[in-house]
Order: sequence, then C-alpha cells, then structure tokens
Amino acid sequence: MSLKVYLAGPEVFLANAREQLDRKIALTRAAGLIPLAPGDLAIPPQPTKRQLGHAISAVDESMMDNADAIIANLTPYHGLSADTGTCFELGYMCARGKLAYGYTNVAAPMRERAVAHYGGDVHHGSDGRLRGADGLMIEDVDMADNLMMQGGIERRGGALIVHDAAPDRLYTDTTAFEHCLELLAERAGLR
Amino acid sequence: MSLKVYLAGPEVFLANAREQLDRKIALTRAAGLIPLAPGDLAIPPQPTKRQLGHAISAVDESMMDNADAIIANLTPYHGLSADTGTCFELGYMCARGKLAYGYTNVAAPMRERAVAHYGGDVHHGSDGRLRGADGLMIEDVDMADNLMMQGGIERRGGALIVHDAAPDRLYTDTTAFEHCLELLAERAGLR
Repeated sequence: MSLKVYLAGPEVFLANAREQLDRKIALTRAAGLIPLAPGDLAIPPQPTKRQLGHAISAVDESMMDNADAIIANLTPYHGLSADTGTCFELGYMCARGKLAYGYTNVAAPMRERAVAHYGGDVHHGSDGRLRGADGLMIEDVDMADNLMMQGGIERRGGALIVHDAAPDRLYTDTTAFEHCLELLAERAGLR
Repeated sequence: MSLKVYLAGPEVFLANAREQLDRKIALTRAAGLIPLAPGDLAIPPQPTKRQLGHAISAVDESMMDNADAIIANLTPYHGLSADTGTCFELGYMCARGKLAYGYTNVAAPMRERAVAHYGGDVHHGSDGRLRGADGLMIEDVDMADNLMMQGGIERRGGALIVHDAAPDRLYTDTTAFEHCLELLAERAGLR
C-alpha cells in the first residue's frame, strides 16, 4: 500500500497555481506515492469571506488527517520566512506523528537572510546573541528557517532539502521537491 | 484543576525577552491559569548549533505536549505575517486537540497589509482574484493572517483577538493577550 502525501506550500497563491500543483501531483505519482494537494477539492460557496476561510481550513485539515506524510515547501514567502499557512500545516502533521519532509528554494540560511534583511546593521547584544538594529535576536542555529520547523522535521527522521533555484523559478523549481519525494519513497520501501 | 497554557510568540527574540516573558507569565497566573513558556527550561550545551536547534525544538514540543491550551502571539514578524515558529506551534496544538487562542497587535487585516506590501500595485487576475505585482494571490477572507491559523483557532471555538498597539509597543503590549486569558479562563470555568 502506498503512502498518501500532503503537498503543502504557497503554490496555491501562484498565478499558475493549477499548472504548478498538477506538476507536483504528477511527480508524486511518478515516485509511487499518492498526492493530496490543497486546491484539489472544490469548496462550496459560503455566505461570508470569513466562512469561506473556515471552509478551506476544514478541507485542508481533513486532507492532512487523511495523509501519511507531508512535504512542505518552506521557500521564503512575503518576508524573511516561509509561508505561515505551510508552517501551521507542518506543525499539524508533526503533532499527528506523520512523516515530515521539507524544502526551500533559497540557499541562504536563516541567519544570512536576517542579516541581509537588516542591511547588515546587526550587532552582538550584551547577552552575546546576534541582534538586528531593532534589537530582535537573529536565530543562529545553522538552519533554513525557524528551528521549530527544521527541528520538527529532522528530529522525526525527515530531511529539509536546500536548493539554490533561479530567482524567476523560486516557486516553480521542483528539484528539491523531487529530492524529498525520493527520500520519502525510499523510506516507504518503494525503491 | 487549572489549565496549563503554552505561551507561543516571538517574545523569545526580544532584547528584553526575560522581562516580557515574566510579564506574560505573571498575567497568566493572575488569570488563574498555569503558564508554560519557551525559555523557561534551560537547554544543556550542545556540540553544534544545529544540535542546539534540535534540543530547543524538543523542549518546546514537550512543553506543548504537557499543555492544555495555547495562546499564540500572531503579530507580524520580519515580514507580512506572523513568526513562523509560532505558526508551527499553533498547528501542532490544533492537531493535538488542545484549546487554541491567538492575537495580533496589528489592526490591519492580511489583505490590507498585503496591498501595502505591494505599495498598492495590485490587480484582479483573470480568475477574479486580487493579486500583487508579482502575480501572487492576496488572501481575502477577512482574517488577520493565513486562513489556516485563524480558521484553526475559530473552528475549534477559540478566538483571534485583534488589537491596535502603538508601533513602539508592537511586541510588548499585552492588551490582546489579557483578553485571550479572560476568554480561556471563562471557558475553563474559572470565572
């Protein structure tokens, strides 16, 4: 019996969302795994925007409950860090004891991106911690994003794959995603 | 028996982290609840930065496992959206069926912040969706952040409290946090 994999990431927001999700779905099937992707299920019309949000949240959670694993696209989105919905979903799946993998298409680790965010205006505080101009601590644990994500993945035997995608392919390059599929298929004994 | 509440948020990164966490801890106790805060447990030294990250991740997850509820500070952090570690933790607690509440100290909803992020350069795509100059869709479901977070909270009977804090008190204003404490204490039958 094959593994069902929830494909988490900001692809749903892309102008070519359907095309990109279909590409990931096809790659997942080619790896011998069963894809479950947000956007696959039609959401019935709702009386208010807020209720539409609730309906999507309910559908996505039920897809996760039905999945055996998650591959989370943690490429930075609208800021220094990953898409927050994807982070919620990764935490959700870790808590449920599902297999967890992740990837990012930006090679620079969290520390380097944060230093760039402050234009290099960083300093070591009186506690020895690296801090931005606004005093906020820069996480410096050799990880791609906040330690809860990479820690949650790696402590469960998963992996966070880092890939250096071309800037114009930040959300469409599937190299690291395919690497995650290989690792997951291997773990599931499919190859 | 009183509820144990995990205090999730970017406070650990503040220059006055200990002071701010102690303030939230005292407020939680005053509400008749038992606070569990990241940073409360000492992390033993580790051979590498990565292993330190894993150790902190393990301690924080075990605190969440031990808690009955979460109050997540979802104030935007280093970008448009909430701290990603906090989002992971909120998803984790929702998946475990714990009580979930959240708050933000920025009054502008996700849609308004995203439009500002694009300097107003937004348009409706051929699919009718609001999109930024880069084509990325702007979530428009009358919520404070990505719908997985607010949906996860509200669908479980919790609430996301929105407060308009002064810019220099963005991470220290506890008005909305105290409102969450009241709601949680009421739900726990403590008042």
